[in-house]
Amino acid sequence: MTTQEILQAAQGAKLPLALADADTKNAALEAMAVALIAAQDKILDANKQDVENARGRVSDVMLDRLALTPGRLTDMAKGMREVAALPDPVGAVLRKIVRPNGLLIEKTAVPMGVIAIIYESRPNVTSDAAALAIKAGSACILRCGRDAWASCHAIVEALRAGLRRVRLPECAVSLIEDTSHASANELMTADGLVDLLIPRGGAGLIRACVENATVPCIQTGTGICHVYVDKAADLEMAVDIVENAKTSRPSVCNAEEALLVHRDVAAQFLPLLKARLVDARAAAGITPVELHLDARAAAIIDGVPAAPQDFDTEYLDYKLSVAVVDDVDAAIAHIAKHSTHHSEAIVTADAAAAQRFTTCVDSAAVYVNASTRFTDGGEFGLGCEMGISTQKLHARGPMGLAELCTYKYIVHGNGQVRGGSSAKMSCYTNK
Amino acid sequence: MTTQEILQAAQGAKLPLALADADTKNAALEAMAVALIAAQDKILDANKQDVENARGRVSDVMLDRLALTPGRLTDMAKGMREVAALPDPVGAVLRKIVRPNGLLIEKTAVPMGVIAIIYESRPNVTSDAAALAIKAGSACILRCGRDAWASCHAIVEALRAGLRRVRLPECAVSLIEDTSHASANELMTADGLVDLLIPRGGAGLIRACVENATVPCIQTGTGICHVYVDKAADLEMAVDIVENAKTSRPSVCNAEEALLVHRDVAAQFLPLLKARLVDARAAAGITPVELHLDARAAAIIDGVPAAPQDFDTEYLDYKLSVAVVDDVDAAIAHIAKHSTHHSEAIVTADAAAAQRFTTCVDSAAVYVNASTRFTDGGEFGLGCEMGISTQKLHARGPMGLAELCTYKYIVHGNGQVRGGSSAKMSCYTNK
Repeated sequence: MTTQEILQAAQGAKLPLALADADTKNAALEAMAVALIAAQDKILDANKQDVENARGRVSDVMLDRLALTPGRLTDMAKGMREVAALPDPVGAVLRKIVRPNGLLIEKTAVPMGVIAIIYESRPNVTSDAAALAIKAGSACILRCGRDAWASCHAIVEALRAGLRRVRLPECAVSLIEDTSHASANELMTADGLVDLLIPRGGAGLIRACVENATVPCIQTGTGICHVYVDKAADLEMAVDIVENAKTSRPSVCNAEEALLVHRDVAAQFLPLLKARLVDARAAAGITPVELHLDARAAAIIDGVPAAPQDFDTEYLDYKLSVAVVDDVDAAIAHIAKHSTHHSEAIVTADAAAAQRFTTCVDSAAVYVNASTRFTDGGEFGLGCEMGISTQKLHARGPMGLAELCTYKYIVHGNGQVRGGSSAKMSCYTNK
Repeated sequence: MTTQEILQAAQGAKLPLALADADTKNAALEAMAVALIAAQDKILDANKQDVENARGRVSDVMLDRLALTPGRLTDMAKGMREVAALPDPVGAVLRKIVRPNGLLIEKTAVPMGVIAIIYESRPNVTSDAAALAIKAGSACILRCGRDAWASCHAIVEALRAGLRRVRLPECAVSLIEDTSHASANELMTADGLVDLLIPRGGAGLIRACVENATVPCIQTGTGICHVYVDKAADLEMAVDIVENAKTSRPSVCNAEEALLVHRDVAAQFLPLLKARLVDARAAAGITPVELHLDARAAAIIDGVPAAPQDFDTEYLDYKLSVAVVDDVDAAIAHIAKHSTHHSEAIVTADAAAAQRFTTCVDSAAVYVNASTRFTDGGEFGLGCEMGISTQKLHARGPMGLAELCTYKYIVHGNGQVRGGSSAKMSCYTNK
């Protein structure tokens, strides 16, 4: 099918999904999980092909992301069942207003309609995204990178078999066949056919969507996350938090990339930092963190001199930019200039400094005395997520099921007309 | 100042506004209202110029929209005081989560930052938009049409005098000096400098924003609103609702443009409709409604034959498209095809039909037994509004103060790191 045919077909899934109750959607997710495991051999065969074709062309990290195993497939099925176990977001009354004229106004969560996801080479995104979209009552159009196409195709075939079993239209989950830029652009401009577009990938894809998308779009962005160690910080706590934020999983978007230290505690704190992140790790035979120091930090400890662009770099690696700042306002100004508005933290025992930081730092998640690594749907208690939004419109931070819905106002009356008894006259003067 | 300079200057207002408490913002609105009235002579002089220059070039309706009077200025000041009287949306805790690890997560309403509004020739939008933006804690960049520029400039000068009086930065409210397309495009693509763009104007402006904006944008759109009279309708109530929806103010977006009637009641209902909307009005010497009838309706009453495009036309006039449909699903399908997703109503005493209609009709407001004319921030009890959003992302329906804010997650801990005690080890394997 062409991209246009897939877009049209998905329209036919909107009403059946909007009308499906929680039990039906949960049964669909269960059937999809069962079908995924039943198709294990086909999926692994297809994946083997993908991996063979990609070998040599992509990095080992990418190959690892692409490769599926029976264990990974089991995790994917488990993930779908976890989504089934979450409360149904559709139909939730977000606000209830009773007006003096008797109108009952219910702001009600409803499905988006059709959600398109453009992603790259992780086949597991296929089942994750489909499960979240279906549970949120929306059809799902998937467009993967070409390296993963055979795998994703086999997965989608299985998911559609599951949908058929519960008599939901299989066009509720579709994979775009064309993996060229043309199909991505077609999705970005499918006005009226795509209600929400979520790009999940590198900076180039995000930028292309921002520049070209005419359909509603949410960016799940990069994270240049900061930790600021205030003069009133518990320095042991600060070292623990920085260590966790930087090293517990450096490759993810909520990992710390830059450290700011108040000048009054820099001479005391930076040696503690170096001892934990560099020396202790080297002594234990694990990768030490490479500290990229501004001039003031370099006057206190040894490290690599920071280049100006270091503070605008998402390392995703055992590297950390370090700067000494004059006070909390200087930290706030630095963050305003360099942050990607994902997650930032202050370590301080001073409530006033904490409040100034949380008020003035303009990011999706702002922490006081905790690691930035908690920015995650599961860690926030929101359940599974589609990604972390770094934009301000619609959804900010972890995008769970609620954020994959829109709302409408459902208004019940018993014949109310505007303007009451005088309406029939006043209206005639058009005022 | 150039548009670029204005955009840069507005950045300097973000923190002072984010830090301003409700009392400060309300004092600012009061000072702005006082200053507006104090500058009445200057504003009316400027407006006189605008009206002189526009005369002959624009329609009488446009001239009327453009013209200010002492009474209209008083209304504008009153409007600002009404916004001051509303609750402060900033700082509201939208959701509070306490995690097992002790993290306190507060999803908190926060200002957007900088809100840009592109509008046309209504000078009163200037003070309305500025008041809403300031109350929502955001700086406001206004770009009016050239016909209204002198008036809007005089108004903005007054508003800035008010801001200075309460020691808020006057760049919190700015008017773009350039009224050419270039400045509109500059706002649409001011990535990182405009946090929210709201176009308020005709279809051409909205389309330009959808196609060209790379900054976050909300459309306040047009309304092709439908009323569906079900076979289970109270027909007297239906006539009252259709009359109100069509004739109480035909020029506004929540007015009815198309009527759908169930075939089982068409023969009974349509003559009632014609009696009320055509004959009674003609007899009373007021403009009768021109009924544009599809073939099935035309077989029952007299009227103008409907052209196919009539059902896609926002008349904003005493005209109504009328079609007979087979059942509620046919009405839903017709609406899906022709609606602009603003407001639709069903008149019925059948709860099942009502529920099917409210579930399946994909519009910002869906009514059961009430007029579409209630889609309005004031009528919903939300206070003043910036417009009616017809998009699904972020805000749908009336955009009040809450919808002019974004949110952030403010997280308080006491040293929490992710992964608990095992984090230091598990992290080293990057899993």
